[in-house]
Amino acid sequence: MKEPLALGIDMGGTNTAYGFVNSRGHIVRKGSLPTTGHTGVEGFIADFKKVLDPVIKELGRENIIGAGIGAPNGNIYTGEIVFAPNMPWKGIIPMAKLVGDALGIKATLTNDANAAGIGEMMYGAAKGMKDFILVTLGTGLGSGFVANGHMIYGHDGLAGELGHVIAVRDGRKCNCGRYGCLERYASATGIVITAEEWLEQRTDTTILRTHTGKLTAKAIQDAAHAGDAMALALYEYTGKILGQTLADMVAITSPQAIIFFGGLANAGDMLLHPIKKHLEDNLLNIYKNKVRIMQSALPDADAAILGASALVW
Amino acid sequence: MKEPLALGIDMGGTNTAYGFVNSRGHIVRKGSLPTTGHTGVEGFIADFKKVLDPVIKELGRENIIGAGIGAPNGNIYTGEIVFAPNMPWKGIIPMAKLVGDALGIKATLTNDANAAGIGEMMYGAAKGMKDFILVTLGTGLGSGFVANGHMIYGHDGLAGELGHVIAVRDGRKCNCGRYGCLERYASATGIVITAEEWLEQRTDTTILRTHTGKLTAKAIQDAAHAGDAMALALYEYTGKILGQTLADMVAITSPQAIIFFGGLANAGDMLLHPIKKHLEDNLLNIYKNKVRIMQSALPDADAAILGASALVW
Repeated sequence: MKEPLALGIDMGGTNTAYGFVNSRGHIVRKGSLPTTGHTGVEGFIADFKKVLDPVIKELGRENIIGAGIGAPNGNIYTGEIVFAPNMPWKGIIPMAKLVGDALGIKATLTNDANAAGIGEMMYGAAKGMKDFILVTLGTGLGSGFVANGHMIYGHDGLAGELGHVIAVRDGRKCNCGRYGCLERYASATGIVITAEEWLEQRTDTTILRTHTGKLTAKAIQDAAHAGDAMALALYEYTGKILGQTLADMVAITSPQAIIFFGGLANAGDMLLHPIKKHLEDNLLNIYKNKVRIMQSALPDADAAILGASALVW
Repeated sequence: MKEPLALGIDMGGTNTAYGFVNSRGHIVRKGSLPTTGHTGVEGFIADFKKVLDPVIKELGRENIIGAGIGAPNGNIYTGEIVFAPNMPWKGIIPMAKLVGDALGIKATLTNDANAAGIGEMMYGAAKGMKDFILVTLGTGLGSGFVANGHMIYGHDGLAGELGHVIAVRDGRKCNCGRYGCLERYASATGIVITAEEWLEQRTDTTILRTHTGKLTAKAIQDAAHAGDAMALALYEYTGKILGQTLADMVAITSPQAIIFFGGLANAGDMLLHPIKKHLEDNLLNIYKNKVRIMQSALPDADAAILGASALVW
C-alpha cells in the first residue's frame, strides 16, 4: 500500500531541488538539477520533466497529490515568478502552470524563502514560534516574515524581499538595478564581492590570494575554518551589515528569533556571532537581549522543500 | 436611556486627548490636556482624574464600559509604557493600571500608532484594507503595520517602531541614544531640526528667518502655504527621507497603502507628493505604482481615540 506524497520543489538561482514528502514531513525521495544552462524556461521545464517523470512513475503518479514550489519572487496569489533578478529567465514566468502542465500534477507556488519559513515553522527551528524572521543566504538573500503565526504575503503576495532593503545607501549596484541592496553584501555572492574588493585594495597575507579559479563562499568558509584572518574578517563585515539592517527589521515585527539558512549560513557561528553582536549594538533598547539568532535545524535545502510541500497539504 | 460608551485615550509626547465613543464609532464627548508639566506620572494621573471625573459623572459611570489607551511604546500584552523616549516619564510605566485605578474603569493599552491604525481600519482611510502601514507624524514618528487584516504586535507586543529605523547611518542623535533614527528627520520635531540647521548653514531669504520665538512645524507649514521656497524645500527633504525609508518597508510587508496622520501630515500634498515621488524612485520594480500614499480621513487625533476605544469593544 502506498502513502500519499507531496512534491516539494525549491527553485534557486543556481540549483533546483525537489523532494517527495509524506504527511509526517519525511522526505522519502529527493534530488536536484541545475537551474541554469537550459534553453530558456521551456528548456528548463523539459529537462525538469525528464528528471522527474521516471521518479513519479516509480512512486506511482496516483500517490502524488500535488506539487508546491518555492521560487525567488514567487507570488502565491498568481503562481508566477515575477522579475526575479537572480533567476536565468526575465520578466513574469507562470511557473506553477508550467510545472503543473509538464508533470500532470496540480502545482502551487510561493516565494522560496516564504516556503522555507513555513518549513521551519512546521518542522524546524521555528516550531511553536508565532513571530520570527527566516533569512536564506544563498546566491541572493531571501526572507520570510512570520507575524502572529502567519506568513506576511502582502496585498499582492510579494512581501518579504529583505534582500532588496537598502543596507548601504548608494552602495554596490544590484541585479535589480538599484544600489546598496542587502543581498549584494550578505549572500554567497555578496561575501565573494567583498573578498574580491579586499584582495584588490589590501595587501595582507591570506589563503584567499592563492585560491585558483573563481573565488567562492565555500573557499572563504574553508579559509576561515583554517583560521585565515581575512576570511574571518569577511564574516565579521558581512555580519555587521546583516546585524545593522536586521536591527531595523526587529523594530518593525519584533520577532522572537531570526533563523538563517542557505549556503552562507553553513559557516555557523563564524557568521552568527558577528550578526548577533552587531544586531544587539544597533537595537533600540526595548528589543535588546530578546531576539534569538539561530541556524536552521533542517539539513541543507530541506526547509524549502518541506515548506514548499506544505503548500499542498 | 443611556447608551454604552468606551473611553478612548490618545497619549502623546505633548498632549493627551480623550473621547467617549459609542458603539457606532461616534465620539460623543472629547477633550484634552497637556501630557507635560505635571509632577511626575503621579501628578499627571491626578490631573487627568480631575479633568475626567466630572465628565464621567455627567455621562454616567455605569455607562462607561471600559477605557482603551494608545501611548508611545505602549505594550498591549502588559499594559505598560516601556522606555518611551518622547514621554516626560522614563523607565516602565504601568499606565493601564494607573489610569484604570484612578478612574475606576477597566483600562487596556496599546501603542498609540497601533491604536490609530485600528481606528483607520475600522472607521477611516484603511476601511476594507488588509495590508497597510499607518504612520503618525507628531512629536515623534509612530507606526502601525497591518498584515492580512491584523496589527503586527510582535512576540512581546512592541512591534511597529518605524520611527527608530535608521534613516541616515550615523546621522542625528536621537532621544533613544542611537543615531540617525527616522523620527529625528520625519516628524514635527525633525522638520524643525532640519530648518534650524538650514537657517544656520544657508543664506537664502526665507520667511522662517523672521519667525519670532521657537520655530515650529506649524510655522513651516504656514510659510510653505505662503510659497516660501525654503519651507517647501523642507517638505521635499523630509519627504525624501521618508520615501527612501518607506521603500524598504514596502519590501517587507508589501502594503496597498501607507496612510499618514498627525500634525506634520496636515501639510497634505506639500509633504505627500515628495513622499510619493521618492518612494517610487526607491522601490524595487515589483512594487512600483502599487502603493497608495494617503492622508488620514479622520479628523485630528480622532483615529487614535477611535482606535484606542476599539480596544474596549
